[in-house]
Amino acid sequence: MNISMYQASAPRLANTLKNLSAILDKAQIYCDAKKIEPAALTHFRLYPNMLPMKRQVQIACDTAKGAVARLAGVEVPKHEDTEESFAELKARIAKTIAFIESIKPAQIDGSEEKNIHLKLGAVEVDWKGMQYLLGHALPNFYFHVVTAYDILRHNGVELGKRDYIGNP
Amino acid sequence: MNISMYQASAPRLANTLKNLSAILDKAQIYCDAKKIEPAALTHFRLYPNMLPMKRQVQIACDTAKGAVARLAGVEVPKHEDTEESFAELKARIAKTIAFIESIKPAQIDGSEEKNIHLKLGAVEVDWKGMQYLLGHALPNFYFHVVTAYDILRHNGVELGKRDYIGNP
Repeated sequence: MNISMYQASAPRLANTLKNLSAILDKAQIYCDAKKIEPAALTHFRLYPNMLPMKRQVQIACDTAKGAVARLAGVEVPKHEDTEESFAELKARIAKTIAFIESIKPAQIDGSEEKNIHLKLGAVEVDWKGMQYLLGHALPNFYFHVVTAYDILRHNGVELGKRDYIGNP
Repeated sequence: MNISMYQASAPRLANTLKNLSAILDKAQIYCDAKKIEPAALTHFRLYPNMLPMKRQVQIACDTAKGAVARLAGVEVPKHEDTEESFAELKARIAKTIAFIESIKPAQIDGSEEKNIHLKLGAVEVDWKGMQYLLGHALPNFYFHVVTAYDILRHNGVELGKRDYIGNP
């Protein structure tokens, strides 16, 4: 039976994005309770040359929609990086989830050997679908979700790993 | 053809652990160059009730060997949490990788529906192999690797996302 390309991608990405959205709810509640300006969290960087929290969320969304679109062979939806508030970041996540959920399993299944051509900054790479999903898209997606979580945690938002893992 | 349980687990975990080991090399070089006591990094927490860097590495290793052992139906090797130095943490990673690489694909393949019983603190859960791997073990593994990375990055170690992703 094995794992289908769909099972390893779309529902996993959507599930974690839903958890990330709930994490942002907790960040908003924390800001309200402590009278913290939300931009203090959304613009926070763990190091000056790392990306701020809001960019971690945006890139997590981009990685998720990019993976699903490329594996399905449909155009990657363009979402402008205009979000500032937690509500706007949650809307960005919601439209990413809506796109992911619009893709049918049959569109992604069978893409194990599909050629995936990617521009990573100045470098162009060619991978097979499975290699791209397991070795690049998923680790990259989790990287940005966890870094968003770590930034919020570092700033005192009351979160636990269960908020990130959710209900597998 | 699909993705086999082995393909989605052992080589992915081993690959990221190798990247984590190389990240620790860079942390050691940074400490040497800046005359930083390594414990300042290995004991560093992003928040007082988060785990320190060395525990992030140990738990990443535990998650990886636990997943591979449970899916293969072999006993989970016990590794005591005694590491302090970067060299010791690298040795912990190396013995985890050696265990992962000792497991043959045929031992893991076909474990999609296998019952996985897990104690998570006070809670006991029952999952199927695929659900456990994709929804718990992999996100949890990446959580601890990325948090170790984020702690080092936060403390100025010169790393980039490529150190974490490596060569997919």
